[in-house]
Amino acid sequence: MSLDEYVKREFKQVGTRVRRPDGVDKVTGRAMYGADATAPGMLMGRILRSPHAHARIKSIDASKALALKGVKAIVTAEDFGVPEDDFTLDVQDNCIARGKALYDGHAVAAVAATDAATARAALKLIKVEYEVLPHVTDVDAAMKPGAPVVQEGRVQENVPKGFSENVTAHFEFGHGDLEAGFAKADKIVERSFKTAATHQGYIEPHACLASVTSDGKADLWCCTQGQYMVRTLCADIMGMEASQLRVTASEIGGGFGGKTTVFIEPVALMLSKKAGRPVKLVMTRDEVFRATGPTVSSSSDVKIGMTTDGRITAGQATLRYQGGAFPCATTEFGCSAAFAAYDLEAVRTYGWSVLTNRPKEAAYRAPGAPMAVYAVESVVDELCQELGLDLLDVRLKNAARKGTKSSYGPTFPDIGLVATLEAAKAHPHYQAPLGPNQGRGLSCGFWFNFGGNTCVSLNVNTDGTVGITEGNPDIGGSRASISLMAAEELGIPYDRIRTIVADTSSLGYNDVTDGSRVTFAVGLATIKAARDAIQKMCTRAAKIWGIDPEAVEWKDGAAVPAGPNAGKFPPMALAEIAAVSAETGGPIAGHYEVNADGAGVSFGVHLCDVEVDKETGATKVLRYTVFQDAGKAVHPDYVEGQMQGGSAQGIGWALNEEYIYGEDGRLQNPGFLDYRVPVASDLPPIETVILEIPNPGHPYGVRGVGETSIVPPLAALSNAVSHATGVRMTELPMSPPRVLKAISGAG
Amino acid sequence: MSLDEYVKREFKQVGTRVRRPDGVDKVTGRAMYGADATAPGMLMGRILRSPHAHARIKSIDASKALALKGVKAIVTAEDFGVPEDDFTLDVQDNCIARGKALYDGHAVAAVAATDAATARAALKLIKVEYEVLPHVTDVDAAMKPGAPVVQEGRVQENVPKGFSENVTAHFEFGHGDLEAGFAKADKIVERSFKTAATHQGYIEPHACLASVTSDGKADLWCCTQGQYMVRTLCADIMGMEASQLRVTASEIGGGFGGKTTVFIEPVALMLSKKAGRPVKLVMTRDEVFRATGPTVSSSSDVKIGMTTDGRITAGQATLRYQGGAFPCATTEFGCSAAFAAYDLEAVRTYGWSVLTNRPKEAAYRAPGAPMAVYAVESVVDELCQELGLDLLDVRLKNAARKGTKSSYGPTFPDIGLVATLEAAKAHPHYQAPLGPNQGRGLSCGFWFNFGGNTCVSLNVNTDGTVGITEGNPDIGGSRASISLMAAEELGIPYDRIRTIVADTSSLGYNDVTDGSRVTFAVGLATIKAARDAIQKMCTRAAKIWGIDPEAVEWKDGAAVPAGPNAGKFPPMALAEIAAVSAETGGPIAGHYEVNADGAGVSFGVHLCDVEVDKETGATKVLRYTVFQDAGKAVHPDYVEGQMQGGSAQGIGWALNEEYIYGEDGRLQNPGFLDYRVPVASDLPPIETVILEIPNPGHPYGVRGVGETSIVPPLAALSNAVSHATGVRMTELPMSPPRVLKAISGAG
Repeated sequence: MSLDEYVKREFKQVGTRVRRPDGVDKVTGRAMYGADATAPGMLMGRILRSPHAHARIKSIDASKALALKGVKAIVTAEDFGVPEDDFTLDVQDNCIARGKALYDGHAVAAVAATDAATARAALKLIKVEYEVLPHVTDVDAAMKPGAPVVQEGRVQENVPKGFSENVTAHFEFGHGDLEAGFAKADKIVERSFKTAATHQGYIEPHACLASVTSDGKADLWCCTQGQYMVRTLCADIMGMEASQLRVTASEIGGGFGGKTTVFIEPVALMLSKKAGRPVKLVMTRDEVFRATGPTVSSSSDVKIGMTTDGRITAGQATLRYQGGAFPCATTEFGCSAAFAAYDLEAVRTYGWSVLTNRPKEAAYRAPGAPMAVYAVESVVDELCQELGLDLLDVRLKNAARKGTKSSYGPTFPDIGLVATLEAAKAHPHYQAPLGPNQGRGLSCGFWFNFGGNTCVSLNVNTDGTVGITEGNPDIGGSRASISLMAAEELGIPYDRIRTIVADTSSLGYNDVTDGSRVTFAVGLATIKAARDAIQKMCTRAAKIWGIDPEAVEWKDGAAVPAGPNAGKFPPMALAEIAAVSAETGGPIAGHYEVNADGAGVSFGVHLCDVEVDKETGATKVLRYTVFQDAGKAVHPDYVEGQMQGGSAQGIGWALNEEYIYGEDGRLQNPGFLDYRVPVASDLPPIETVILEIPNPGHPYGVRGVGETSIVPPLAALSNAVSHATGVRMTELPMSPPRVLKAISGAG
Repeated sequence: MSLDEYVKREFKQVGTRVRRPDGVDKVTGRAMYGADATAPGMLMGRILRSPHAHARIKSIDASKALALKGVKAIVTAEDFGVPEDDFTLDVQDNCIARGKALYDGHAVAAVAATDAATARAALKLIKVEYEVLPHVTDVDAAMKPGAPVVQEGRVQENVPKGFSENVTAHFEFGHGDLEAGFAKADKIVERSFKTAATHQGYIEPHACLASVTSDGKADLWCCTQGQYMVRTLCADIMGMEASQLRVTASEIGGGFGGKTTVFIEPVALMLSKKAGRPVKLVMTRDEVFRATGPTVSSSSDVKIGMTTDGRITAGQATLRYQGGAFPCATTEFGCSAAFAAYDLEAVRTYGWSVLTNRPKEAAYRAPGAPMAVYAVESVVDELCQELGLDLLDVRLKNAARKGTKSSYGPTFPDIGLVATLEAAKAHPHYQAPLGPNQGRGLSCGFWFNFGGNTCVSLNVNTDGTVGITEGNPDIGGSRASISLMAAEELGIPYDRIRTIVADTSSLGYNDVTDGSRVTFAVGLATIKAARDAIQKMCTRAAKIWGIDPEAVEWKDGAAVPAGPNAGKFPPMALAEIAAVSAETGGPIAGHYEVNADGAGVSFGVHLCDVEVDKETGATKVLRYTVFQDAGKAVHPDYVEGQMQGGSAQGIGWALNEEYIYGEDGRLQNPGFLDYRVPVASDLPPIETVILEIPNPGHPYGVRGVGETSIVPPLAALSNAVSHATGVRMTELPMSPPRVLKAISGAG
């Protein structure tokens, strides 16, 4: 079957809403999460954290703690070597402070003891002598010359002179003649925006169990989005070979990008190595907030020019991202995503990566994109408002489409933005009437989607059932979607397949579960592995029939004699071939390893209505509709879930969530009571409209769907609140006090 | 490289005594055994067992037990269905008695409770009403018409009329004209022998943790020799599909064949299913002895004729095996092995499988062979004694060799018996002087060796290390030998490879670890998987060099341009190719699935000196030397360990070990104090001489080595004691009272 035929095929199982394989486990508590792993003789670990935003560690005296009965090991940065590459060293330094504590909550020492109470008691006996240093937590403040320097002597990539040492990189993307573009504009709007750092807010804190032997092997069980990533980082930090470290990913209680690196795993390994016993480390919520990765906070300036008929003539954005005490990794993504929805003749984004005394950022759903798109889509909204133009007409007029040279370089293949905008325009929500103090907001959103290194093995059991081994933790339903694609390809019922997530010693390397890559890349590898197995099953059938393997086809779950042999033998179903596999050569399997490309970008359009209480500044979300190009929606429930989940998180960013730092540089709200994520009563039902524009890079036309949905809510909400209040909002979150202040400032 | 070249190759790593990968784990207690698995909310299970050797279960009243606080589930046979095939039904019935308790210790009911104490208390509250029935435990008694019938209405395969219903099968093997053969003999010896049932005596009792969901999935962790076997049996018993049951084998604390079936696993699964929580079941030693598989006990008659110059003219053996309350599976092996060491014109073995009220036999190292060879080798010894012939000359004269039509059918390819006998003859032990009350015994031994269904995946990590995934629990060093073979093939150091035992969902089907199949079959699959990976690495190198993949060879761990491209590029080592694999197509792996044949039979010759204390009847083993054809000895330490371990166990069978049943049909010695396995002080150092006659069925010439070594000790000891005492011994074990009785009877 050609690719084109696959894309156009009628699916029998893909696209159905089958039972989720992990549902019962999760609702009954049977699922094994990170903290559920145990081992005989296991110790409990605890981590001592800096109470200062920035402090030199002059000395650590652990003698009293070590003398406490039950304490088996204490580690500090001195126990670790210096990994070869800077990236790994940064990861290590973030796991345990070397020389300086760089943020409130930065790990300074760790203890392993026979029980948790002893470990906690031991922490209090560790004496750390600090020299408190001046600190900086705001991105704009940190860029200024003379700001407290977070890390001395870091590389400053493309950074002009005159900036603080805290600026670690400068980026520029775009094309065309900006000046000429702005000159053609009838209207130019230029605005500055700020966004707060937000946390992924996964329910499950980081947890792991490490067990290291004296001959250099180790096993690690942990809650992660990527057991191979954990293996690579920990092996490098521990000076081990990858093959000697076996990492098993537990079921995961949420990740959203925040579990794509390590925080406690190297510490647990080192504690285990020193103690000679398994060590469990489980974070508290306070530790999660203070010492794992939130997003960047940002400061940005956007300038866009438009003609009176709605043509964007030029767009320019400057994005300043602070990613905490280590170089920010998402500035490039923000720069690339900012104008991705538009087909522009002149566009430029400038990015600045800045160090502050905050926890190192971690990826969070479409990392770096929401804050950039927020600024751009707010300005586009304002231009439409100023010029009296229809929000969707303007977007349609300027929309990126097949052949568009994107603002970040590549030329787009088939993409779904126009179809998504048209679906929004045709939807009743767009024309529904609004009441007083109500406003409607709209925003586009974009995410690249990743492919990457992927291995899949598919084993045909003798009872005709099939086991699939993949290597990416299932954070959004991938076990179901992978089983569905295999069922489709093999022509057997979904229920006969079980897909499991292998440990690092049971399957070849897989890139981390991120970038919305899994359903695309693992799905692709699964389809190819299934075809490998199909080819072998056809060969087995040919052997049984005594005909040439080339003369056998696979159809509806069975080998069928074809060509000159057509009709000579009845079809032989997968289960029949499997049942006699021992007699025809042995077990039947299919395998595929690939570094997948062709992931296919994804666009979404969000529409939202809000009502603002002008007395309190509180915003109520009245209606919310998500339009998104999902490529082929393998399991629509999960696709809708991703669209809804990303929207809910984006609404949280827009309205309430923020890291609040005191003058002392300490985080003031490290808990779910003070860091306010949306709860069910904060949200309306989120309507979803799936567009299925096939991705030509995947046999079934699948695209990633998990991340795009968090990109539009910030601007959609901001634009809606701006319309409801009559005041242009430029800072997130739009918490009641901030909205009140904006209204009163305007009044 | 041709097969012949491989067999003759100079090995660089295979044959070296590298560090064992599991050594530290096992001596430090880090290794996770069956009882070490835990799960949140786990219950503890306990099993109620029959105190009667044979009894009808009239009723089971569990109401009081169920009412006990903390009791979450109780299961009996009524909770189980009836599996389709008789084999599986027997396994199930052995796990939990249906209608009748068939032996002392047969499981009758099981309970799961919040803790072990509650579970034990609950057992006492279960009221079972038994109707005690007459029982039979001796094999000869059970064959007689009128004996108590263990199971009514069983199939009696080839059984002539007139025998008890307890006789379930009759076998006959052999060829030639027996009558003519015996007519040619100058001397005929005919004797009867008895052997006791012996237990494998593994240190680790059976243990498992089962977790079943309400949507029909299950996970099972257990101590087993075959996780796929457990999956198949348990899935069939539970009415599940294989893909829905994920079985993980723990580290194993000994198996020796005794862990090639299930005893508690289906019960744990059913308890978990009923309770809706994970359930752990761990056997006590008493339960292991009473309710898991010992060997058969046997009764046999052997008749052999010999000429005065030592030519065997005919041999005949009748073997009666009782395998407990279910059809005996090893009678055929005994019949086939009895005369396998000899090249005979006329030979016949007759086998009888008999039911008794004893626990169902399980495999134990060369199952069925030791008791058959014991009888034959005792008679050959007696003939040599009577005719004044040299023990080894007679064996050499009659030895099976290449081209011999074996007594059980197949014609032998290259085999190592003659070389092994010659090595024994040349060894100083054979001519060493003996003192008073000392005797020297000699015996040949034989095992078939298995191949079977096998899957191996080999993954090349980007740091140049290699992970191997195989599916057979490592009971005798297979992780080391598999890593060695891969290291040899890939040309990288052994230390860069880690071989792990995968669970059933992470790799395709593998036959159980038995029949000495693993080093042969998994080794073969590993070599083929390595070649698959090598081919891919050559292709990657070709891509990098821009040349045809056919023009690349693999040499000393590196891709090397060959043919017209020879010397054009420097060799590219595995680690270099691996490091850039993401840029050349993605992860690199090799896979192989096979139903391996060509395992290659194995022969051994054991020589032993004993001294018998005529006052006490105690036998002291003075010297013991093992000669065995191991094919290529991949890791000589392990090969020697197998030779020594099998010998030690065989010495135990010969001198002390036995199941002792009382008149009431109850086992009287279910513990290591009363069931006496040899301890270190009972044994001399066991000398080993490895012969390496390459197996043509394996790329490196490997044969199985684990089982042959338990076959000769019985006759070697019996012959030695016979010579030391001057009384021909015909019953095992030769415990002091039995030897004393024999001496006094002769006196």
